[in-house]
Amino acid sequence: MEWLQREITLSPKSRGFHLVTDEVLSELPEVRDVQVGLLHVFLQHTSASLTINENAAPAVRGDLERHFDEMVPENQPYYQHTIEGPDDMPAHIKASMLDTSLSIPVQDGQLAFGTWQGIYLNEHRNNGGARSLMLTLKGEWA
Amino acid sequence: MEWLQREITLSPKSRGFHLVTDEVLSELPEVRDVQVGLLHVFLQHTSASLTINENAAPAVRGDLERHFDEMVPENQPYYQHTIEGPDDMPAHIKASMLDTSLSIPVQDGQLAFGTWQGIYLNEHRNNGGARSLMLTLKGEWA
Amino acid sequence: MEWLQREITLSPKSRGFHLVTDEVLSELPEVRDVQVGLLHVFLQHTSASLTINENAAPAVRGDLERHFDEMVPENQPYYQHTIEGPDDMPAHIKASMLDTSLSIPVQDGQLAFGTWQGIYLNEHRNNGGARSLMLTLKGEWA
Repeated sequence: MEWLQREITLSPKSRGFHLVTDEVLSELPEVRDVQVGLLHVFLQHTSASLTINENAAPAVRGDLERHFDEMVPENQPYYQHTIEGPDDMPAHIKASMLDTSLSIPVQDGQLAFGTWQGIYLNEHRNNGGARSLMLTLKGEWA
Repeated sequence: MEWLQREITLSPKSRGFHLVTDEVLSELPEVRDVQVGLLHVFLQHTSASLTINENAAPAVRGDLERHFDEMVPENQPYYQHTIEGPDDMPAHIKASMLDTSLSIPVQDGQLAFGTWQGIYLNEHRNNGGARSLMLTLKGEWA
Repeated sequence: MEWLQREITLSPKSRGFHLVTDEVLSELPEVRDVQVGLLHVFLQHTSASLTINENAAPAVRGDLERHFDEMVPENQPYYQHTIEGPDDMPAHIKASMLDTSLSIPVQDGQLAFGTWQGIYLNEHRNNGGARSLMLTLKGEWA
């Protein structure tokens, strides 16, 4: 086996930035058997996003939400795509400023993260519902 | 065959965000024969960018252009790199806020996109001309 | 050999955007022997970042620093994560706006960059110290 590809569904999240490293890895235990490789995490949506950031202090996630709401406000006079609600167009903009996919090195059965890194799912809609990820793991298996 | 790498040239685009999924795939029909893999799309420029966003409503693309022009205005007093025109330095900043490359999962001969996802080429110059992409397809062929 | 994975340490950088293409490649001379592949560069930190941008004019790097400081100011009243100093929370936000990892095509022993592209390490802390990168090179060796 060299490729493993699996679609998973994350539980619905409230609007904001959420640490999901454990939720993702629990759906892909095969990472433990990879000696060297890359894990690709792809979000199949355009109004939520992924990023890698600090895995400890919850206030970092709150500050990210508050700052992105400042940089990308709702109800700007130049928004023309307003039919899906005031949270929709800012969600698309935030999705492009953050990431739709992540590539993470795998070494000796673990993500080769720094001490403080984790995977975030950033829900930019007020009621985004469950979000789908396509995981692609490529590597040398033990 | 396991790797396929091909440089392609996109037709010149006006300043703004453009949906180019079909233009890219028409230059890489071999995607249809890949069972599982990843497509890497790399833009060889620093004043345009790539992103994945909504593939339906054109107003989303217009709103992205208008909002990025607000976040990254021309003629800021602290810009020192002004020799190539007022649209140049904002173009470099936007390029770093958005993406220079995309990695997209491939499954059963298709990009494993969500329903509403497409590839955008974001032209940040007033007259950017034709833009080059290096496509790298890695996977298991049928 | 198909995978090469190596952790390297960059020399400490002052706050700002720095061109590090040569520093990275000097630690990975094996790129020269790859006919086709991808180089993945992963930063193991959450208060610095990577990006690809213009490799010539130093003013571009200065303007990027000045503009990101405008978009992500220190001491915003809504920041709650302030315990590590005024430069810390803005550093986390900039890290998510920019990149934690880069994927760069390799062709005939070289990065398949456009003429003006280079790798930047963006140091967002006042005293970030040495930063670790995990390099993963996957390709066909000559």
